[in-house]
Amino acid sequence: MRGAVLHAPGDVRLDTRDDPRIEHPTDAIIRLAATCVCGSDLWPYRGIEAVDGPVPMGHEYVGVIEEVGAEVTTVKPGQFVIGSFFASDNTCEICRAGYQSRCVHAELIGAIGTQAEYARIPLADGTLVATPAMPDEKLVPSLLAASDVLGAGWFGAIAADVAPGKTVAVVGDGAVGLLGVLAARELGAERIIAFSRHQSRQQLARAFGATDIVTERGDEGVAIIKDLTGGFGAQSVIEAVGTQESMMQAIRSTRPGGHVGYVGVSHDVTLPGDELFFSAVHLHGGPAPVRRFLPDLIDRILTEAIDPGSVFDLTLPLNQVAEGYKAMDERRAIKTLLQP
Amino acid sequence: MRGAVLHAPGDVRLDTRDDPRIEHPTDAIIRLAATCVCGSDLWPYRGIEAVDGPVPMGHEYVGVIEEVGAEVTTVKPGQFVIGSFFASDNTCEICRAGYQSRCVHAELIGAIGTQAEYARIPLADGTLVATPAMPDEKLVPSLLAASDVLGAGWFGAIAADVAPGKTVAVVGDGAVGLLGVLAARELGAERIIAFSRHQSRQQLARAFGATDIVTERGDEGVAIIKDLTGGFGAQSVIEAVGTQESMMQAIRSTRPGGHVGYVGVSHDVTLPGDELFFSAVHLHGGPAPVRRFLPDLIDRILTEAIDPGSVFDLTLPLNQVAEGYKAMDERRAIKTLLQP
Repeated sequence: MRGAVLHAPGDVRLDTRDDPRIEHPTDAIIRLAATCVCGSDLWPYRGIEAVDGPVPMGHEYVGVIEEVGAEVTTVKPGQFVIGSFFASDNTCEICRAGYQSRCVHAELIGAIGTQAEYARIPLADGTLVATPAMPDEKLVPSLLAASDVLGAGWFGAIAADVAPGKTVAVVGDGAVGLLGVLAARELGAERIIAFSRHQSRQQLARAFGATDIVTERGDEGVAIIKDLTGGFGAQSVIEAVGTQESMMQAIRSTRPGGHVGYVGVSHDVTLPGDELFFSAVHLHGGPAPVRRFLPDLIDRILTEAIDPGSVFDLTLPLNQVAEGYKAMDERRAIKTLLQP
Repeated sequence: MRGAVLHAPGDVRLDTRDDPRIEHPTDAIIRLAATCVCGSDLWPYRGIEAVDGPVPMGHEYVGVIEEVGAEVTTVKPGQFVIGSFFASDNTCEICRAGYQSRCVHAELIGAIGTQAEYARIPLADGTLVATPAMPDEKLVPSLLAASDVLGAGWFGAIAADVAPGKTVAVVGDGAVGLLGVLAARELGAERIIAFSRHQSRQQLARAFGATDIVTERGDEGVAIIKDLTGGFGAQSVIEAVGTQESMMQAIRSTRPGGHVGYVGVSHDVTLPGDELFFSAVHLHGGPAPVRRFLPDLIDRILTEAIDPGSVFDLTLPLNQVAEGYKAMDERRAIKTLLQP
């Protein structure tokens, strides 16, 4: 089959890779209906995260089951399924507490590489959620978004304790941040302040429910948030970048007793203990346990209550994967959908 | 009046200080019934926290009101009162959310120094809670504990989301950690694991409700907690020290999705963002908003449901304040009560 492989920073190609096959009786093989490029794929693409030899890329996926292993009982060939970037058994004590991304049997789908025609999904019973019927073609991008960026933005909002009546700030205007805005609206936030300096992203933020846009960042941005919130800071702040600046911007934008939900994968971040202590904020985040939210998110998408698929502002055939990465790297695209 | 003054590391003396007087119409003057030495007083005493010239010491207090300013309406002379180490108006938006230690008008009582005969308490209406009647002498140590260490341990347990049925670990066997054990028991924890290598502290931990004692610390201690909890870690961990080692011990002892409540004042702590991210724990803490809990804690003490005063294992007259510090510094005493 054909699948994307990163050979070196900036060098991603569509190579011929081995067809995946059932390796464990709990596996399923899916034929990808759509896949995409993630903001986190840009870390190795940009050489910020070291890459050791050619690696298959991609961890977001929706598709149709081709084959299942002997022990798979809850999904079957022909079903349209969505899963998260962590395979999980969904039965262990950690999964049952809602942290499937830290399942005791968790496997990173990124190691498999779903920017491809087919993919092997481990722990299919715990990982995959089937739609009731074959979904309408137009809903496929939204279902694909649920696989990672919507689930991550949603977790950010939950971790930030978003609730009706609250003021929420969102640091990061990538797909996860924008879908954090959408999640905040769905969870009843009264006011949603999005940090963004890019017009197309500002527009999408507004379409997803942002009531205010702040173009300043760092401590200047923090000062504006304070001004907008009676000097206190926001009650809930979603962090969706993962840098030192964005984390400090999120913590400093939050009032004492407020909540920071952080879902940007941390890169070279160190948090000063004394400042964190006296900030008196709640801090929660990590790799989003997307599986926890999938049934609810799929339902909202199939009933067209939400339209997270509009984060895809570039759609390309899989064989143009290189351009898909380039457009995101140069911030010409928010998120690239790839059609196998 | 006489009051404790720290002149240099290791040099605390009972000096003659100016009698406090009403400076603002919202002040009250109290005559101390009892005061004490805090673990956090040892930071400057040990020279770890810089001291700039002679400073009055002490921030814990119970006593009888001598005089109130013209605007004070909720407490009056003759009443026995307890307050926290932060004065707070208890009416601002941050106070109403339960974070009185970060009140917009917060004042640090430590700057006033309550290891003395009298003290001026700012924002008396918001800060002080009166007992219904003059309390029994034997309950005074417990009421004094509520002023800081009980309130801090209680907040640690609340921040760590302690609830019935949970397994709780407590890092730190000082007064705050020990009272965190007591709080965990009162809040219904099923299993309470206390880290302690000192026999007298282990005994008190058991008296307060600890079900297990772990003498190892750091990553060795973490390994034991994992062994005791099916490999997962505790659901709730209370951190009551404030060092790099204790913070990492607390985070690593917590299962994914679990809660760390940290109340040890941070000293030279930097948290690695990537480890924190993948830990997927909730982190909350800071200067305890003791005022939030005072009415409930006072009620539990007056009905003798709890006996937090037993953390005081050394009682001295105020003029032996130097020995009170020394005994705690050398870990001969858990906590010293001083009688003015």
